[in-house]
Amino acid sequence: MINRQIHLVSRPAGEPVRDNFKLIEAPVPALLDGQVLIKHSWLSLDPYMRGRMDDKKSYAAPQKLNEVMIGGTVGDVIDSRNPAFKAGDHVVGMGGWQEYSVADGRGIRKVDTSHIPLQAFLGPVGMPGVTAWYGLNKICEAKAGQTISVSAASGAVGGVVGQLAKAKGCRAVGFAGGPEKCRYVVDELGFDACIDYKAHPDSKSLYAALEASTDFLHAHFENVGGPILDAVMVRINDFGRIAMCGMISGYNGEPIPMKFPQLILTSRLRVQGFIVSEHMDVWPEALTELATLVATGKLKYRETIANGLDAAPEAFFGMLKGKNFGKQLVKL
Amino acid sequence: MINRQIHLVSRPAGEPVRDNFKLIEAPVPALLDGQVLIKHSWLSLDPYMRGRMDDKKSYAAPQKLNEVMIGGTVGDVIDSRNPAFKAGDHVVGMGGWQEYSVADGRGIRKVDTSHIPLQAFLGPVGMPGVTAWYGLNKICEAKAGQTISVSAASGAVGGVVGQLAKAKGCRAVGFAGGPEKCRYVVDELGFDACIDYKAHPDSKSLYAALEASTDFLHAHFENVGGPILDAVMVRINDFGRIAMCGMISGYNGEPIPMKFPQLILTSRLRVQGFIVSEHMDVWPEALTELATLVATGKLKYRETIANGLDAAPEAFFGMLKGKNFGKQLVKL
Repeated sequence: MINRQIHLVSRPAGEPVRDNFKLIEAPVPALLDGQVLIKHSWLSLDPYMRGRMDDKKSYAAPQKLNEVMIGGTVGDVIDSRNPAFKAGDHVVGMGGWQEYSVADGRGIRKVDTSHIPLQAFLGPVGMPGVTAWYGLNKICEAKAGQTISVSAASGAVGGVVGQLAKAKGCRAVGFAGGPEKCRYVVDELGFDACIDYKAHPDSKSLYAALEASTDFLHAHFENVGGPILDAVMVRINDFGRIAMCGMISGYNGEPIPMKFPQLILTSRLRVQGFIVSEHMDVWPEALTELATLVATGKLKYRETIANGLDAAPEAFFGMLKGKNFGKQLVKL
Repeated sequence: MINRQIHLVSRPAGEPVRDNFKLIEAPVPALLDGQVLIKHSWLSLDPYMRGRMDDKKSYAAPQKLNEVMIGGTVGDVIDSRNPAFKAGDHVVGMGGWQEYSVADGRGIRKVDTSHIPLQAFLGPVGMPGVTAWYGLNKICEAKAGQTISVSAASGAVGGVVGQLAKAKGCRAVGFAGGPEKCRYVVDELGFDACIDYKAHPDSKSLYAALEASTDFLHAHFENVGGPILDAVMVRINDFGRIAMCGMISGYNGEPIPMKFPQLILTSRLRVQGFIVSEHMDVWPEALTELATLVATGKLKYRETIANGLDAAPEAFFGMLKGKNFGKQLVKL
């Protein structure tokens, strides 16, 4: 049986390009005792992957060259020599950019698809959902009556941030790129307001848009960085919290200085970075809440689907530029 | 009886100048019931005063024009119509840039000078000392074995930060301006290392100096901002804490962007501003510890003394440029 894989074969200088990747065919190895063979049905594409492609200090080791690109996957067990799994089980794991993976049982988790579509375990009921939950609850410390803003509000994480905030009785303000995404954020996701950052290219203009859309903010969830963050820092209340989840505007090496760090002092802000995989203790609580909301139709989300493993690099480039709408997936 | 006062009469455009201030003579008013008349012996000059001189959003209301400049003072009660105070009591308060003040008993506090010099209640056993204590304990969360850095290390706050850190069993690294201050920080205050920021004018050069002086940092106490903060952010460990106490390098309106805010995310930093006057609950604990250390000679400090109220503006300008050495005081 042949397994198609995408390897990282060179590191990008700035924007990643097709030549940084190579499609490889390799045989699926025979299972050893304790191992499980999984046929992936969906691959998740996420902004963090861009950081891993660089060979520099970050929160995780760099992606190794000439190995399968890291990535979250869902799929079915098709063969098992591990008593905890049997053929037909649906599992979520970090299978990587390939059609099959072999796991030893650690790092994969069985999921129940009776009320939740399998690929949602890569989105609102998976890492992006828990990321939203953690930042909103543990760093933004959102409480009823407060106003919370979030950038990349139509994305896999941002959309959940705003909907969870609304469910708590907060006011939610989003930033998204373009009128179509902004309409979706307000009309479908139920945010109170959304600012089209493409119509407001600098922090002054973004500040004016913020001032027109909302009173002062209590907390902010950052996925983008740059002028959005600068504008938010001027429009946030004393003792505001800023959850630093992503800075996609700088992922290709662009400088994204914070213009007014003195506001951290004068407004007594707390600006804090986090990586959700370091907070596994909250996952059960967060996933339970998220699964319930998705199963009952109360948490909405959208997917952008690329077809086939070959399409993964292009879909990934598009996501870094904000071309996706909601969660970017690859159907394998 | 004539009271000499310094008023703020215009707001500085950039660096403050002598003409922003005016020396006024006014009669000392007769006391009403409940009031206390204090003759100031010392006036404290502190960096926060520069922020108050601007008419913009900050953590406190701007200093009003044509009123006495705000400032901490120590002095003696010379007349009292308040049963809680009697002539001869030594008191600390916010008397302002003037020779006498009238208080209603709130905001002044009697101090015991039997083991501690009166002016130390404006320094290590006063607001600067508690500022150091709060940032180090509550934001930096310094623990034995960790490495803590602090900018303006020879100053009234920075010197206490490093000595408290050493007393806890931390390694302390300072930044100070010039070889004389650096020698003082290491030889007299007992820091493990001190980096002369004047010899390292940009963040790359400061980083190289940090790398040569110390392993990675666990926490940092910021009084300056700019290139020092940029260098520290590259040299701080994952989960590092940065207490934002002051950004004197930007107090005259200079832009001081934070170069690499993405490090807050990738290193999962917590960057938090604070104002010690909002944490009055910790003052008794902090002052007790600081008073004991000063009374027993274990906490060292230095003073730069200007003579007479007229000298206050020049001394203040010098402090903003780092010309003072240790706590800047005016002897009245």
